[in-house]
Amino acid sequence: MLEEAVQKRIISQNREFMKGYRENDPYEADFESDQDLKRPQPPLVKAPVSAVRIPLPRDFDGLNVDKDPVRLIRDRRSARVYSQEDMSLSQLSFLLWATQGVKALRGKAYATLRTVPCGGARHEFETYLLIRQVAGLEPGAYHYLPMEHALEFLHPVENLEAVISDTLCEQRWAAKANVVFYWSMVAYRAEWRYGIYAHRIALIDVGHVGQNLYLGCTALGLGTCGIGAFFHDLCSQVFGLDGDDEFIVYTAPVGTIREADRSAEQAFYQFVENEGL
Amino acid sequence: MLEEAVQKRIISQNREFMKGYRENDPYEADFESDQDLKRPQPPLVKAPVSAVRIPLPRDFDGLNVDKDPVRLIRDRRSARVYSQEDMSLSQLSFLLWATQGVKALRGKAYATLRTVPCGGARHEFETYLLIRQVAGLEPGAYHYLPMEHALEFLHPVENLEAVISDTLCEQRWAAKANVVFYWSMVAYRAEWRYGIYAHRIALIDVGHVGQNLYLGCTALGLGTCGIGAFFHDLCSQVFGLDGDDEFIVYTAPVGTIREADRSAEQAFYQFVENEGL
Repeated sequence: MLEEAVQKRIISQNREFMKGYRENDPYEADFESDQDLKRPQPPLVKAPVSAVRIPLPRDFDGLNVDKDPVRLIRDRRSARVYSQEDMSLSQLSFLLWATQGVKALRGKAYATLRTVPCGGARHEFETYLLIRQVAGLEPGAYHYLPMEHALEFLHPVENLEAVISDTLCEQRWAAKANVVFYWSMVAYRAEWRYGIYAHRIALIDVGHVGQNLYLGCTALGLGTCGIGAFFHDLCSQVFGLDGDDEFIVYTAPVGTIREADRSAEQAFYQFVENEGL
Repeated sequence: MLEEAVQKRIISQNREFMKGYRENDPYEADFESDQDLKRPQPPLVKAPVSAVRIPLPRDFDGLNVDKDPVRLIRDRRSARVYSQEDMSLSQLSFLLWATQGVKALRGKAYATLRTVPCGGARHEFETYLLIRQVAGLEPGAYHYLPMEHALEFLHPVENLEAVISDTLCEQRWAAKANVVFYWSMVAYRAEWRYGIYAHRIALIDVGHVGQNLYLGCTALGLGTCGIGAFFHDLCSQVFGLDGDDEFIVYTAPVGTIREADRSAEQAFYQFVENEGL
């Protein structure tokens, strides 16, 4: 067992990371961000690397999104059992727009305004996908281009289902998803403005993104489940990230679901029954 | 200026905190959570401390929440200019339900299922409010009781507007909000299950909460703006938290807004124009 003293030290450090500003912060008085220092601003989004582009529909009228906000919020739940029917490109388009869609630019190229809030409108995230079953799309690795609301195809992925479950710490249920979202942080995009203060907020901000995925899925009758347990190195490798200037911070499989599978979903919580909790 | 080497070290540590699991994690093999060790589970919610309870309405039919999900997500934006009209108890009730409302229990007392997702259904957050202008409620400090969907009145607050802006690092615009949400983390509630691995996910999870506040406000025609810049010690003091076992992790003022103030909102971004960004 991990020594109690070691655990206490790590927990104490982790709690410190999470806490708000201290009035006696030793760094605050001397802190100037790269923005303060007029250093050049990094790009608002990552440049495409692939010539293969898939434009995404921006018209969501045809989607069946008739829930009012009360029902939407009430009906949201995590779903880990997927029925493996086709997902449409329109559905995927809506989910990408709902999570990272660009609504406007602020200034000439100062900031993007998106469908989610983000500290200082830095929007330091990139969206990568492993697509398994979306009508009309070849399975493989993709990257979302928020400025043009399009996907770029990165590369095919051998043993796609195994790669999905391996990246997600062997959670094999996730390999039946139609698509898995992997959000990276391009760290300097936030650090340019917030420096040493960028990171706590960034995790909260990617939570905003994740919640819109949940609600977007609920609106479409799809299922998702946010996953914090993923392997850093393997995720970096799959999407060609260096793992330090850019690294995955959150993931979520999305799949088609059936009401009939609701009871199968209970299997994930059988221990609660078994242990009389 | 803060030394470049110091900044680099802090940034590097912070990035590490944010990253996914490492296959060579030195702790993982030896790690057992308190849950694994069958140590007693902490309470699912914090016990009330006040005799003054305000039951909250659970019927949201009378609220004007007629937006479909596409409009809801599209119309969400941060609002920092508040018109200081009355907010109703029903509106506040909806926002509390949307952010931390309990939908069901799992097991006898194993977990709460709420309107937001949270790792392991730990729901380690508590909601505190500074209420300034909600019809029928005395201004002061409140605590949300999610099990009974009620508020408890904690205490009046002298110089309420100053306390709001002081806790939020002197952001004076926030003092015109009708109510300010302060979410704490009761750390052991998550650590019991996840130990040293509890904290990264907890920040993402409080982001889920914040996004539902944004969308709930959008549905009601209210304004909010998530705030990561708050003073740890002052927030702890206002709500009587010890600051280590429980501490504030995220905050958000909520206020009434007017379309006519949309241009005043631009003042917060005047620097973008001024600096030709």
